[in-house]
Amino acid sequence: MDKLIKGLHHVGVAVSSLDDALKSYRSALGLEPTFVKEVKDQKIRVASFRLGESSIELFEPTDPTSTVAAFLAKRGEGMHHVALAVDDIREALEAAQKAGAVAIDKEPRIGAEGQLIAFLHPKSTRGTLVELCQER
Amino acid sequence: MDKLIKGLHHVGVAVSSLDDALKSYRSALGLEPTFVKEVKDQKIRVASFRLGESSIELFEPTDPTSTVAAFLAKRGEGMHHVALAVDDIREALEAAQKAGAVAIDKEPRIGAEGQLIAFLHPKSTRGTLVELCQER
Repeated sequence: MDKLIKGLHHVGVAVSSLDDALKSYRSALGLEPTFVKEVKDQKIRVASFRLGESSIELFEPTDPTSTVAAFLAKRGEGMHHVALAVDDIREALEAAQKAGAVAIDKEPRIGAEGQLIAFLHPKSTRGTLVELCQER
Repeated sequence: MDKLIKGLHHVGVAVSSLDDALKSYRSALGLEPTFVKEVKDQKIRVASFRLGESSIELFEPTDPTSTVAAFLAKRGEGMHHVALAVDDIREALEAAQKAGAVAIDKEPRIGAEGQLIAFLHPKSTRGTLVELCQER
């Protein structure tokens, strides 16, 4: 089980207006996004800022029925998940579940940038929504 | 202002029991802490997991009057702040404030690992508590 996790892939931050948030990140922190795009199956629009090996992803819901819209209604804007880089997502997902973590995704699926991703439920990871993320 | 931010230094996660959280992170994610220590002036006990260039820091309050205890009472366990690596914290702090960000720390102070740190208020950074962090 040791060294399943290779790095911190990205931090996901939910915002109500991506355009407003881009202005804030640009002016206050001098950050320019690497890309901005819509991810239709997740009903979000995403902007990514590269920070060395890691990145920050800001996203706004594009549909009021999305899970991100529900998060914003409940918690307001702010950090939503942390994505951990793994080499073998199936191995990491199986190990996490064997240890009692609850997988939201029983099978890896395709993420915004084409990676394989799977989420672990925050109730089993001390309140933090954890995404496992394998580059392909 | 460009390139003031060099990387993602760490993600800070508030937990109610550091020992319980360490067990979860170890068993579910195979992560072993690089260090565990008390930071008396912040009234917290911290565990840090190195993840490539970045790290995850878990912390529990050691005093019910701490800001972390207040956060847990209001929001529950979960992500608390994101720390961005900068080369010149005074320059970054000044630039952020000029752009309208509200500094919690008007002057940099010493962090858990001896770095210079300063926090920006989440109301001015789209709901995310941002720490600027300069290694010395």
